Amino acid sequence: MRRFVVVGHKAVTTPKFSLNDLPGGAGRMDIVARCVNASLFISHDLRRDVECFAVLLGEPEPPVTVRVNGERVRYLSPDERSPAALIKKALGVLEQGVPPAGETESTPGVFVSRRSFAEVIGGLTDIVYLHEAGEDIRSAGLKGDEAFVLSDHQNLTPDEEATLASAGARRVSLGKKLYHADQCIVVVNYELDRLLDG
Amino acid sequence: MRRFVVVGHKAVTTPKFSLNDLPGGAGRMDIVARCVNASLFISHDLRRDVECFAVLLGEPEPPVTVRVNGERVRYLSPDERSPAALIKKALGVLEQGVPPAGETESTPGVFVSRRSFAEVIGGLTDIVYLHEAGEDIRSAGLKGDEAFVLSDHQNLTPDEEATLASAGARRVSLGKKLYHADQCIVVVNYELDRLLDG
Repeated sequence: MRRFVVVGHKAVTTPKFSLNDLPGGAGRMDIVARCVNASLFISHDLRRDVECFAVLLGEPEPPVTVRVNGERVRYLSPDERSPAALIKKALGVLEQGVPPAGETESTPGVFVSRRSFAEVIGGLTDIVYLHEAGEDIRSAGLKGDEAFVLSDHQNLTPDEEATLASAGARRVSLGKKLYHADQCIVVVNYELDRLLDG
Repeated sequence: MRRFVVVGHKAVTTPKFSLNDLPGGAGRMDIVARCVNASLFISHDLRRDVECFAVLLGEPEPPVTVRVNGERVRYLSPDERSPAALIKKALGVLEQGVPPAGETESTPGVFVSRRSFAEVIGGLTDIVYLHEAGEDIRSAGLKGDEAFVLSDHQNLTPDEEATLASAGARRVSLGKKLYHADQCIVVVNYELDRLLDG
């Protein structure tokens, strides 16, 4: 299974945010929402073999991780509000109380937990850190089932980079230009489609 | 200059739509909005050499064309509501009355007119129709300043396809998978970045 892990450094960890103000009050939740959809949508279908981890590190009670599984997810539409609404529901379920170590399915295919970035990374293998100084994606020998890690509008912190280094993450580049996180995900899916499907 | 032309077959032509319901009441204006942003945004900057034409064909008074110029546009943010708000303003200006043949700058870098799809295409050269049966983008010999035409969730109509054929449009493919219109734009920009910048 292919995975994308996006870190929302300011993305709020309360359901009390407005779907009408994702960039502001919700701490750039718009970026997280676009990353979920870039991971999972393809024309007239979802990518069943992909899941997206949104690691939310904003106030008031970080960390929270929301995992959206392409095979099982329901009620997801291509507009930005739709994944944001699923995250909002997930945060509401979490607020009602979930066993500290557990992961709860808040809506079909959406799983919420208090996992940290390090815990998420610790549970994954074949980790790829998308980074301008990495190997070119076209010659990096990817197999398509890696876990790709991206940051929101802020860079990963030195601590987060150290977590990736400890996990043996490879650095892979998309070329000389830098893109938004959701654009990177679109490009990774595309490059892997080209690699695997011709 | 690189151009993207996206046809919103149901996208409304009145400013009386809600930014909170872009997929429904606004006739999949969410797709148009994402296409504008996919055309123009890159990390921490806008693509100054790109413009996006949104051809709106929904009720009540089609056609309307909104042109967003990457060099001049202001007040554009990466979230979906932001380009939708600029389009809403453009439609409001148009409603106040614009000379039938003219184009008016509704906000900096955003130009609105009653141009039809055929009129927009008639004003462009080096037209590329993104189509699954076309030449592969990687070997099509693109120069980067073409005008790429895409449809929203509906296919182009036979009439629209005939307009493209009359204009000598080439068909270019992104591979075997089919993507959402905004994802296609991200990929085209990426492929051209790779081609032009290495």
